[in-house]
Amino acid sequence: MALMVKKFGGSSVANAERVFNVANIIIEDYKKGNDVVVVVSAQGDTTDDLIAKAKEINPSGASKREMDMLLCAGEQISIALLAMAIEKLGCPATSLLGWQAGFQTNSTHSLARIKRIDPERIRNELDKRRIVVVAGFQGLNKHDDLTTLGRGGSDTSAVAIAASMHADLCQIYTDVDGVYTADPRKVPKAKKMDQITYSEMLELASLGAQVLNNRSVEMAKKYGVQLEVLSSLEAKPGTIVKEKVTMEKMLISGVAKDNNVSRIAIVGLDDTPGVAFKIFNKLAQAKVNIDIILQSVGRDGTKDITFTVTEDQAQEAVEAIEAMRDVLTFKSVSADNSISKVSIVGAGMETHPGVASKMFEALSDANINIQNISTSEIKISVLIDEKDADRAVIAVHDKFID
Amino acid sequence: MALMVKKFGGSSVANAERVFNVANIIIEDYKKGNDVVVVVSAQGDTTDDLIAKAKEINPSGASKREMDMLLCAGEQISIALLAMAIEKLGCPATSLLGWQAGFQTNSTHSLARIKRIDPERIRNELDKRRIVVVAGFQGLNKHDDLTTLGRGGSDTSAVAIAASMHADLCQIYTDVDGVYTADPRKVPKAKKMDQITYSEMLELASLGAQVLNNRSVEMAKKYGVQLEVLSSLEAKPGTIVKEKVTMEKMLISGVAKDNNVSRIAIVGLDDTPGVAFKIFNKLAQAKVNIDIILQSVGRDGTKDITFTVTEDQAQEAVEAIEAMRDVLTFKSVSADNSISKVSIVGAGMETHPGVASKMFEALSDANINIQNISTSEIKISVLIDEKDADRAVIAVHDKFID
Repeated sequence: MALMVKKFGGSSVANAERVFNVANIIIEDYKKGNDVVVVVSAQGDTTDDLIAKAKEINPSGASKREMDMLLCAGEQISIALLAMAIEKLGCPATSLLGWQAGFQTNSTHSLARIKRIDPERIRNELDKRRIVVVAGFQGLNKHDDLTTLGRGGSDTSAVAIAASMHADLCQIYTDVDGVYTADPRKVPKAKKMDQITYSEMLELASLGAQVLNNRSVEMAKKYGVQLEVLSSLEAKPGTIVKEKVTMEKMLISGVAKDNNVSRIAIVGLDDTPGVAFKIFNKLAQAKVNIDIILQSVGRDGTKDITFTVTEDQAQEAVEAIEAMRDVLTFKSVSADNSISKVSIVGAGMETHPGVASKMFEALSDANINIQNISTSEIKISVLIDEKDADRAVIAVHDKFID
Repeated sequence: MALMVKKFGGSSVANAERVFNVANIIIEDYKKGNDVVVVVSAQGDTTDDLIAKAKEINPSGASKREMDMLLCAGEQISIALLAMAIEKLGCPATSLLGWQAGFQTNSTHSLARIKRIDPERIRNELDKRRIVVVAGFQGLNKHDDLTTLGRGGSDTSAVAIAASMHADLCQIYTDVDGVYTADPRKVPKAKKMDQITYSEMLELASLGAQVLNNRSVEMAKKYGVQLEVLSSLEAKPGTIVKEKVTMEKMLISGVAKDNNVSRIAIVGLDDTPGVAFKIFNKLAQAKVNIDIILQSVGRDGTKDITFTVTEDQAQEAVEAIEAMRDVLTFKSVSADNSISKVSIVGAGMETHPGVASKMFEALSDANINIQNISTSEIKISVLIDEKDADRAVIAVHDKFID
């Protein structure tokens, strides 16, 4: 007998048929004698529909407290429906809102952090052998106001419950059956991994392989919660995410592509000290998130600085730089949205030299031009032309994984 | 400066335009320096949509606890949107769920009774000169589970807040501009009343003039909360409901019609003691609500008992009686749905003889046959053929009110 936490996303409970599918998965484990806590998101497009209603009232953005009040209704609907379906199938179930499940957060509406969980009510219900269905994504601050954890917050809710209750396993159900070495829709030879480390998962998530929310992986790592990513549509084992993988390590654990990249190039900067500080300080003030930074070697007393941002922040970034003409001398600043970032991730990289050259060889063989390179301990990213991205992923993937 | 409680129904907040209309009404009184607490129902068809979702999961009816969890999401959406609209118009507002507003109820899910209200949070927000928007219809039981007060519960929520906070006035906004002497869509000469007593309002409501929920009027009467029924679409005074009306009394305060009436006739009953008890005890067990009871004088050792129920309970009532063949001797039992109940209500009736005869004269003049008569202290009801009902209301109304 184990304590299992299961999390289902919005698409898994989008309609009555899927709600019953989820209910059956839950009941199967419950009937084996396990204690089951389920975390669900709002149904399908509910959250988007509610956001649209708010936009109608205030197109420039309503207060975050009221947005949280509004959005929390979404999970409230889905937990009630799922509990009804479980009961309809003959098993006892109790739905709990975030605050009823004991989620206490700080007061940062729309991006609240969980401060602590008091799982007493959950435990009481489990002691009565009831299945507990908890609203993900939401909590309560010290003023008794509803808060939300931000998009993807339901993953975090599930991991937080698993951590606070010392659950044996936290299962994240999605529409894929695990974590792959690359996007299986794009790379025919992509392989499902049986196990992956937290660190690798974090790098993959930040590279656009949006299987798991990053905050939830960080929390799982911090509290040692064993995760499993698996399919809500097929009954088969998924991918286990944990501290150390016991199986033989592959050199790399995944290849990811991110098209939502804009490269900002500032050309002809005065090659004087403090230039980079000025630029990135200004961008931080403008709340522009920088990903990769590349600085060319100075030449003729000038240098170039290149960095990447998400495409929706490109315009802001360019404007912020242009506004610095009085304190900064440079020739031009421009944004290029036609690039992609292709990355490989693998804990094995740290101990195996030659990974980078193998990646570059794959790209060279495929006749793909590398525009920029950025590396970290367990990751290598290259910027290439967007139109080459899918070919690049396949070429790199097949070089490392067969 | 006064403390005003304002209640708006679902149709008043059905879309963004109407939400802003309501926000403007609220702000007008707020800007005069009043403290304003607003109670709202779920938007338009939200409650019906949520009920349909539950029916999809469990057509034979989900658990009431989970239904309450589901339905409470409806008001949560409307309070957030209304608070956003008020803020968009430049005034500070805070939305509060039933439990945040301090509504403590018993545990009868779907038909909970309010046990007490702790309005501390409401008062704190008012002290900060904020407009408080409260979710009607909902509360919390002692197990920290959400409960609902039943249909029309938002009226009760508003009156309960007004009672607990000693508000100066509780305004119930509807799509009519007050309480009329008859349905103005049917009776051209119907007049809006400036004032009406709680007792008259209760009788009118129970007669099918569904302007105010009966429980809310009872509560207002008990705690002496002055009500006003007024339009959310036109800015003009409505009808004040209070203990004693100060203006000169009209003989009758209203004429109402109810088509949702079925007359059950049990014919040829043994005229022995205890027969009526047996019948109505059985019907009470079957949870059939009886309205009017008429018992004919015994003749040839038999008598007839006639009573009325709502049409949806007619079949149940007949079956319950048929099932008593072993303990009850009677010739036949049948239901007749083709009748209407037309009633006049007026506190003045108690002191003015001749009201009944004046009503019968009006019906006689209109050539309408009276099938049964039932009277109470401030009400006279007649059962007539359904097809005559509209004519009857006009004839009676014009006899008393000009």
